[in-house]
Amino acid sequence: MRIALAQINPVVGDLKQNTAKLIRCCRKALSGGADLVVFPELAVTGYPPQDLLLYNGFILQVEQIIKEELAPLTAGRAPSILTGTPYRVEGELYNAAVFLENGTVKRVHRKTLLPNYDVFDEKRYFTRSPELAVEMMNDLTVAVTICEDIWNDRDFCPHPLYDLDPVEELVRMNAAVMINLSASPYNQGKQSLREKMVGHLATKHGIALIYLNQVGGNDELIFDGTSLVYNNRGELIYRAASFAEELFFIESDALFSRPKQQVSPIKEDIGTIYRALCLGIKDYLAKTGFCSAVLGLSGGIDSAVTAAIAADALGAENVVGLLMPSPYSSEHSVEDARALAENLGIDYRIMPIEKPFLAFLELFNQDGGPAQDLAEENLQARIRGNQIMFISNREGHLALTTGNKSELAAGYCTLYGDMAGGLAVLADVPKVMVYELAAYLNRLHGKEVIPQRTISKAPSAELRPDQKDEDSLPPYPELDPILNLYIEENLSPAEIIARGHRAETVYQVTALVDRTEYKRRQAAPGLRVTTRAFGSGRRMPIARGYDY
Amino acid sequence: MRIALAQINPVVGDLKQNTAKLIRCCRKALSGGADLVVFPELAVTGYPPQDLLLYNGFILQVEQIIKEELAPLTAGRAPSILTGTPYRVEGELYNAAVFLENGTVKRVHRKTLLPNYDVFDEKRYFTRSPELAVEMMNDLTVAVTICEDIWNDRDFCPHPLYDLDPVEELVRMNAAVMINLSASPYNQGKQSLREKMVGHLATKHGIALIYLNQVGGNDELIFDGTSLVYNNRGELIYRAASFAEELFFIESDALFSRPKQQVSPIKEDIGTIYRALCLGIKDYLAKTGFCSAVLGLSGGIDSAVTAAIAADALGAENVVGLLMPSPYSSEHSVEDARALAENLGIDYRIMPIEKPFLAFLELFNQDGGPAQDLAEENLQARIRGNQIMFISNREGHLALTTGNKSELAAGYCTLYGDMAGGLAVLADVPKVMVYELAAYLNRLHGKEVIPQRTISKAPSAELRPDQKDEDSLPPYPELDPILNLYIEENLSPAEIIARGHRAETVYQVTALVDRTEYKRRQAAPGLRVTTRAFGSGRRMPIARGYDY
Repeated sequence: MRIALAQINPVVGDLKQNTAKLIRCCRKALSGGADLVVFPELAVTGYPPQDLLLYNGFILQVEQIIKEELAPLTAGRAPSILTGTPYRVEGELYNAAVFLENGTVKRVHRKTLLPNYDVFDEKRYFTRSPELAVEMMNDLTVAVTICEDIWNDRDFCPHPLYDLDPVEELVRMNAAVMINLSASPYNQGKQSLREKMVGHLATKHGIALIYLNQVGGNDELIFDGTSLVYNNRGELIYRAASFAEELFFIESDALFSRPKQQVSPIKEDIGTIYRALCLGIKDYLAKTGFCSAVLGLSGGIDSAVTAAIAADALGAENVVGLLMPSPYSSEHSVEDARALAENLGIDYRIMPIEKPFLAFLELFNQDGGPAQDLAEENLQARIRGNQIMFISNREGHLALTTGNKSELAAGYCTLYGDMAGGLAVLADVPKVMVYELAAYLNRLHGKEVIPQRTISKAPSAELRPDQKDEDSLPPYPELDPILNLYIEENLSPAEIIARGHRAETVYQVTALVDRTEYKRRQAAPGLRVTTRAFGSGRRMPIARGYDY
Repeated sequence: MRIALAQINPVVGDLKQNTAKLIRCCRKALSGGADLVVFPELAVTGYPPQDLLLYNGFILQVEQIIKEELAPLTAGRAPSILTGTPYRVEGELYNAAVFLENGTVKRVHRKTLLPNYDVFDEKRYFTRSPELAVEMMNDLTVAVTICEDIWNDRDFCPHPLYDLDPVEELVRMNAAVMINLSASPYNQGKQSLREKMVGHLATKHGIALIYLNQVGGNDELIFDGTSLVYNNRGELIYRAASFAEELFFIESDALFSRPKQQVSPIKEDIGTIYRALCLGIKDYLAKTGFCSAVLGLSGGIDSAVTAAIAADALGAENVVGLLMPSPYSSEHSVEDARALAENLGIDYRIMPIEKPFLAFLELFNQDGGPAQDLAEENLQARIRGNQIMFISNREGHLALTTGNKSELAAGYCTLYGDMAGGLAVLADVPKVMVYELAAYLNRLHGKEVIPQRTISKAPSAELRPDQKDEDSLPPYPELDPILNLYIEENLSPAEIIARGHRAETVYQVTALVDRTEYKRRQAAPGLRVTTRAFGSGRRMPIARGYDY
């Protein structure tokens, strides 16, 4: 038996395009001699379709595609299809894998474990499968599982989230091969974790395991693909591309024999984050109908790294940088921003904010001179936001925001100012990691792309004379670990202090995070690269007390 | 037996203040001769605590309050306590009602039906109760249920969401009285629906039913209180205040006898929406530490209604209006806005946007004159946004946005412009309802508060000469019903057309809604008054296809 595995990049809700893509893969699978072609979780709708699933009209159309467009493709000698899709059984909606054979829907496998934490809301939409079953495919006993179904192994998860381990049950039903259809978003370390877990299952249960993942950026989430095939001794026999589509073939014999060649160990490093962000930018623009981006260049490291990644993702010719100095800008800010733009080969324009700033101050400070208060600091950031949005609106570029996760966490950013834009590229990248990205970019390009002074100078918002980030925040190497424990690990201030951090700093930091939730509620979607990003993965009240 | 019922307004996450409030109520209950004092669902944390529940440190503190501060209050002859709280049993977290008696936690009742739709995410946090049990309290067999537990009656819900009806089970266990602890948010028609449903249960099962609801605005959600007491014949014997706290007493005898006086039928009308919005504004400001608000006054109806409600909610002396005419503003815009401010007695200031506008245009239109394109329209709105935020930042007022639901749905609004602010008062009020509110406000105040011309003139954004909303949108009386079917009823375009709406208009409107999700993602929290508001109740992808 020859199996074609289609690691595809669907567009959420774009049923017509996604179906066309599935059909193209089926043709290639047929001409490649496949007996079966497999697609990821919810491939027809893209993952996550969110509240589109609440529209009956949407579900009807999906079911029609399965029955009238995809099932007929399996008639005659054509390969059967196994694809993820929302599907109703007796009026209940399931996150399903339909097995299409001989022109009809032969069986509907339904997801058993429905994740409802972090960014996942599957219990909002789906009913849990009432049963587990194996499937005979060309004399092979195949167990079909969907994503979370395989993530409840009692050895691997010290605190299993669910009572049932579907893998155990299906192995008991004599499954020889397990095919897992996934839509598993990337975060730092996720690829290694997956290999460890999937390899462990294959070894432990002596089953072959095909893990097929979606690829592509869908709003905040970046799916990395990196599909995996293990033989029944738990040896990795194939690893598909990361951050790219791929259609690949596996012979069932290979699932039960020694690998012909060793697959190199997975390598996850700062370059993986970089590739995730590139795909996140590229897909967000493509899927929202943009082909170019505009952003402000301050001479600082965040905008420099954002611009460099955007240039790599979109092509330098599709990125416009705006240099918007103010009376408080250092001389090097324009120089460094210009050097960056020239290194990258992107278009840039200098648009000083002084004149609009003075025109506003005339309205507000009728007794003369600037007050240099917070209102005026924010005003400068907002004038820049206006300018970026103006160029975005007039010329049709998507505006990228450049703030990093540390700033966003601490609220060290201006609503409608530096937060103005359609996509927050570094919103889930802590400041210390921004420096790593800068160093990586210079290595990757084999030359100084990010100017050295941009990397070495002290971070500053330059909204008043001689301002430095450290006037308001702890140094980033001290700040970032505290933010990590508070946001990613959900530790309370007392628990963070118990880990050895200074009490005063911990309370300062957690208070900043708590009290600036209102800013993040209005932030642009941010690309998720850690285990807990702001956005749908962290749902916090704004009007609240703070006394724990 | 004498029961004290505490319809309280907790602050989400403010354990110290909430506990103090509970203790005060317990003292009053004691001096009022109560045997039992009851608090609403999750009263200790406020509802909804959202991801605060993911912090172990938070849960520990809640449990400590229950055991060390509240349970001891029930020692000796003091009344027992029944209160909603998150609580762990064998390591699992439950949405619980703890029954405290004789100084200890006597029993933990746990919620059986966990809502996970619309704005509710309870399966993200809580485990479902494994059991149902009745409680003997002073010789009365009492069933304790929590909110959703009573909303699955098979007569009342034609399509029950859950397999189990806890009410049926508990009646089978000979419950004579059911106490339901709720945190049920208000929306239009909800009060009547609740009375119908709760009354139906009491009548059908022949049990007395005490329905105790939280009150208060918590971010988007407005809890109305309006707690209810039915005797075992299904007769309403008490209805507590709407949109206000109340501590009231019920004798258990009254639960089983004819009411001494009839409770007047519930009256829900546009005034109910008005009161909800007042509470929503008042609590959002109070709970985020503000006591005054600033907003732009355009002379149009949305800003007029917002200002009038804010003045009623906060006091006219705590509202500042900014009149920000542009070269494209009609003469009557300033006149009408000024008349409104004077009618309301609020502070107002005139801050024309022309000078900053020209300063910006000088940067952007180096070849002269305005282009009158979308970029310039948005720029005007964003200059106003800057001015509002400047006054907000400098003077410490919360900025209110004034856009209505119809505009927000159609994307007829400017990000960082008229959308800039901390709370979107009318975000869930369709335009047609804004007119009803205007008429109501003038009736309520017995004089023209909203100027007649503001009500009668054609809606216009006044961002270019002679602009009218109807140049871009269908007339509101045609638009609003389509939006209602699409957003509140989740009907697809084809289904909406089948209801008799013009196909061309339906496709225009649904496309506008779909393509402007990116704006709503960055909108300020909006007060929810319909069955489906934007925000956490409607979770839509931004990067998506549109072909259904």
